[in-house]
Amino acid sequence: MTVRVHGDSASGNCLKVKWILDHLGVPYEWLEYDVRDGRTRSEDFLRLNPAGQVPVVELADGRPLAQSGAVLTYFGDGTHLTPKGSYDRAKMFEWMFWEQYSHEPYIAVRRYHMFYLGKPPEELDPKLFERGSAALARMEAGLEGRAWLAGDSLSLADIALVAYTRMAGQGGFDLGGYPNVRAWIARVEDGLGIGRFEG
Amino acid sequence: MTVRVHGDSASGNCLKVKWILDHLGVPYEWLEYDVRDGRTRSEDFLRLNPAGQVPVVELADGRPLAQSGAVLTYFGDGTHLTPKGSYDRAKMFEWMFWEQYSHEPYIAVRRYHMFYLGKPPEELDPKLFERGSAALARMEAGLEGRAWLAGDSLSLADIALVAYTRMAGQGGFDLGGYPNVRAWIARVEDGLGIGRFEG
Repeated sequence: MTVRVHGDSASGNCLKVKWILDHLGVPYEWLEYDVRDGRTRSEDFLRLNPAGQVPVVELADGRPLAQSGAVLTYFGDGTHLTPKGSYDRAKMFEWMFWEQYSHEPYIAVRRYHMFYLGKPPEELDPKLFERGSAALARMEAGLEGRAWLAGDSLSLADIALVAYTRMAGQGGFDLGGYPNVRAWIARVEDGLGIGRFEG
Repeated sequence: MTVRVHGDSASGNCLKVKWILDHLGVPYEWLEYDVRDGRTRSEDFLRLNPAGQVPVVELADGRPLAQSGAVLTYFGDGTHLTPKGSYDRAKMFEWMFWEQYSHEPYIAVRRYHMFYLGKPPEELDPKLFERGSAALARMEAGLEGRAWLAGDSLSLADIALVAYTRMAGQGGFDLGGYPNVRAWIARVEDGLGIGRFEG
């Protein structure tokens, strides 16, 4: 059986899965969802992922796997996308856990409200902008003098972080003030061969 | 140099680090913080972890590592706490990423407001209770017929999830309705030799 990916191709978390499979040349079937239409709350879907979220992957043997970070480690483990050194590997995980806790809940969520739901910025919780901006500043500093987030080449951390960072403009964040971040986005896009983001 | 842990011993995220080091017999020095006193925002601390959060570990060679999940993988990689099979290992990461995104922000945050800051429940965002309860229900179902979250023995996922789950009562969640979760908590406490939680 081929790997099956249940995902919404406008969702950064789902794109992470698409990108790693394309990059590693893993064949897969993509099943498209719209996160707004409630289908991820259906009984069939909840059997696949009781958390009711995309992405979820059905592996070649049919077993389901959810959480984009877990899917990245499943396919990326032992490849050039996982640093060999134990410290670099731990730093990769540090960025990946940080993204889900301190980056995605602000940058991706603000983008969701503005871009998907069309809400005006003044109706949004100001914390989304404050904490999203703090996350971008943290990345800008972390990329000072570095080409990649962890180790010396493209890793799972770059894939995990680039997804919503490159779309930050759709959430009302101006990447103009973050030159290290902008240069890194282009580097990761080139490394993955995904082209520039047309926001 | 000995491993140094900067942590608040009332924080579940910091206790995860303490438990794995104790369990694996790694010697360390513990530097105690109170997350409410602002010291994690000092210049010295931010040099160690620009995210301004505990726990942060200084490894034996002095290099810093943040994010409890990353610290768990650094010390747990290649030990009996990481399942050998690639699917079980991925499921371990699935639970760990899920915890930081869908469990900690509700259960730990509600506990912080009630137990640390002494706020009455009616002043709190009702989403904290709704989503925290959904997280406990998800664990209850996930533990049906299973002794451990991933694989056939204690893993990093159990350490990551037990921290705030066992303290959920301090956040106003009643574990009485989750018998699988309660049995699993006792099992993990025994596996780690940390005794029962006195809430």
